[in-house]
Amino acid sequence: MPQKPSISKGTRDFTPSEVSKRNYIFDIVKKNFQTFGYQPIETPSFENSDTLLGKYGEEGDRLIFKILNSGDFISKVDDVTYSSKNSNTLSPKISEKALRYDLTVPFARYVVMHQNELDFPFKRYQIQPVWRADRPQKGRFREFFQCDADVVGFDSLLQEVELIQLYDTVFSDLSLNGVTIKMNNRKILSGIAEIIGAKHQLIDFTVALDKLDKIGEEGVKKEMWAKGIAETAIQKAAPLFSLKGSNAEQLDSLSDLLSESEEGSKGVAELRSIFEAIAELGLQSAQLTIDVTLARGLNYYTGAIFEVAAPEGVAMGSIGGGGRYDDLTGIFGLKDVSGVGISFGLDRIYLVLEELNLFPEAIDQSLDVLCLNFGARESMAALKLTTVLRKAGLKADLYPTDAKIQKQFKYANNRRVPYVILLGEKELTNQSFVVKNMESGEQKIYKLQETQRFIDSL
Amino acid sequence: MPQKPSISKGTRDFTPSEVSKRNYIFDIVKKNFQTFGYQPIETPSFENSDTLLGKYGEEGDRLIFKILNSGDFISKVDDVTYSSKNSNTLSPKISEKALRYDLTVPFARYVVMHQNELDFPFKRYQIQPVWRADRPQKGRFREFFQCDADVVGFDSLLQEVELIQLYDTVFSDLSLNGVTIKMNNRKILSGIAEIIGAKHQLIDFTVALDKLDKIGEEGVKKEMWAKGIAETAIQKAAPLFSLKGSNAEQLDSLSDLLSESEEGSKGVAELRSIFEAIAELGLQSAQLTIDVTLARGLNYYTGAIFEVAAPEGVAMGSIGGGGRYDDLTGIFGLKDVSGVGISFGLDRIYLVLEELNLFPEAIDQSLDVLCLNFGARESMAALKLTTVLRKAGLKADLYPTDAKIQKQFKYANNRRVPYVILLGEKELTNQSFVVKNMESGEQKIYKLQETQRFIDSL
Repeated sequence: MPQKPSISKGTRDFTPSEVSKRNYIFDIVKKNFQTFGYQPIETPSFENSDTLLGKYGEEGDRLIFKILNSGDFISKVDDVTYSSKNSNTLSPKISEKALRYDLTVPFARYVVMHQNELDFPFKRYQIQPVWRADRPQKGRFREFFQCDADVVGFDSLLQEVELIQLYDTVFSDLSLNGVTIKMNNRKILSGIAEIIGAKHQLIDFTVALDKLDKIGEEGVKKEMWAKGIAETAIQKAAPLFSLKGSNAEQLDSLSDLLSESEEGSKGVAELRSIFEAIAELGLQSAQLTIDVTLARGLNYYTGAIFEVAAPEGVAMGSIGGGGRYDDLTGIFGLKDVSGVGISFGLDRIYLVLEELNLFPEAIDQSLDVLCLNFGARESMAALKLTTVLRKAGLKADLYPTDAKIQKQFKYANNRRVPYVILLGEKELTNQSFVVKNMESGEQKIYKLQETQRFIDSL
Repeated sequence: MPQKPSISKGTRDFTPSEVSKRNYIFDIVKKNFQTFGYQPIETPSFENSDTLLGKYGEEGDRLIFKILNSGDFISKVDDVTYSSKNSNTLSPKISEKALRYDLTVPFARYVVMHQNELDFPFKRYQIQPVWRADRPQKGRFREFFQCDADVVGFDSLLQEVELIQLYDTVFSDLSLNGVTIKMNNRKILSGIAEIIGAKHQLIDFTVALDKLDKIGEEGVKKEMWAKGIAETAIQKAAPLFSLKGSNAEQLDSLSDLLSESEEGSKGVAELRSIFEAIAELGLQSAQLTIDVTLARGLNYYTGAIFEVAAPEGVAMGSIGGGGRYDDLTGIFGLKDVSGVGISFGLDRIYLVLEELNLFPEAIDQSLDVLCLNFGARESMAALKLTTVLRKAGLKADLYPTDAKIQKQFKYANNRRVPYVILLGEKELTNQSFVVKNMESGEQKIYKLQETQRFIDSL
């Protein structure tokens, strides 16, 4: 009894059309990574468990896929551990490897292990799948690609400026105009924490502030009160409720608000320097804005924080994000390596391009020309012709058998082939072939020796 | 105490240069897969265990990496199983998923699950990593890419002809001229088994015969005797010891030898039809030869068997292989789907191209132009220039800080940048920049407004 096949939950098969569309995005991202001087690296799908565990918090450790040791794995478990029948203590005894959870920790390991052969600044990009044992739901998968560009070794703000240009260039090349690149700075958040007098309430504060557009100033204040943030703190931070106007104006307001916080002032100065550079350089299609509620990777980032929002009107979470971190490689013993990086959210970008109908029309056209098969002798001539078309770079095929012509045309239609070539007995005698334009129905006759003329006509 | 990072044995980091070289091979393979009408699919890295287990024999099952269930996995193991402390019985209770072992079984699953949306012939290619818990050794890794093209749904021999052309085209495009495409046919092997009167001795027979070049006819016969193959059998198969001459002549000898075996004769006829077609079409740089000792996938293939050998003088196992199978999808309940496919051995092809120095010279040139950094004002001008160069498709970068120029030049040298741009105070005043050719040392001055002229000069 053969088994009915299924696929593991949270994973996906990708059809030819889907692969083509995904590669379209990857190719544009890669091309720009390269013109911006980033170099590709790849790391293994699994790492020694101790490389990954303990790097992503408790929740992260739980979501890391562990690989069972091979062979008689259980014989290596001591009796005491075994008799406890406890998953947490048993797990490290029967599993020494784990699937990559993100690209950042493997990158840090790579930098440390290869430090003597790297030239800094080291600009690397990495496009590989990662795995998370999350509960699958709409848009959340257990296997998905990450797409990261990072530069390590220097703390120059020019690198932040370049990363904004990189976002702008990639999204413009994807014809995804009108994305918003939101920026904040960890030091501004620290400054706000100083102002409100409570570092541990910073997250509650920013989460509430983030709802300003939806629930208004009074609503935000109510939520802050409910979270136990002091009235005096809220009053001190009041200017944040009315941050408006141009980026320059907002920076001025922030500068005033945070004037007594050294770190906060530094954050404002960094942001100002970046915004001024971008104002001078100009962007192709993206908007750059300040968002002081942006707090992603709060415990991780030390400087700039980026997040990219899809164009207005598209309901979608962030389609990219990143930031600066001052100690990427410290966990592996290499100190003082500052870095800054961004990532592209492939799956969401894909959905946005679908929704806005921005994939090129012919992207999933897998065949330019199909030669029909009229029998042994004719098909050899057709295969010769197909060979010439392929050499010219066309996606060309020959139907494998002399099935009924109706069936062959049906196949051509299903595969949406724009041109079908008929090379039957008569054409073989005349050393010619007929090209049928499948859209218009128009037919043209070419001599075999003028095949190049047909190729040039496409 | 930070941990000293290491990498899991049998896995590899790929440096930028290695990724570039690997992508060079992948890109040429992909381009030709596409011009030959193959479409890309991708399947998940892990599958439900029952999709994979039992498909590759006992040894295969042992080499499949199993993924430990998440959460409190041990609580789901019943006490009887647990108390046995047996890895084999415990394994399926604590692991439900496994890493892909090859691309063929997932492809079969894909065809069965997507059968209603596929148009046959379905020509697919798939380039993805696979994982095997093998003992790592030189050239054998636990994670490696497979690179497969298969066409399913028809048994037309034109498809074998096309696959030979595909091998020839790919290796020619890689400038790897002189590979030998060796062919056999499972039916010829069956015919030989009939002739020698013992199907179960076929492998011993072909393994011995394969040594003909090395140990001569007497040596081969001695080995056959040692394996218990009857003298009469060896005599009957004697013509195999002197298969010589052109492919056509060898086919004639085989035809005579196997004339009394219906299946063997069919195999010879198939091979003849394929060789005649290739003789008429011609090959660019590969040789097509008969090799009756070729028995790879003996229990799997039902028709054509392919194997590609590197050019003479390069000590390397096969760099590609494949064949026809009549029942790919039967394991998943879809009968009578004939298919034929080939694969490319990426890692070995890589080593051969390295050995023969066939990678394009500039392949790992990660940067075309580096702008040096002379300080805040100059670097803004240099970043504007860099932006223009990037838009023109050049890989361009700006050094992130105004470090000593010596240090910046050293970086340029380490990264083997062919052109360095100097835009200092004087150049900024003159709205110009200096281009230094790092090989010749020659310097040229351009006005900023004639940047295009510099781009055109490259």
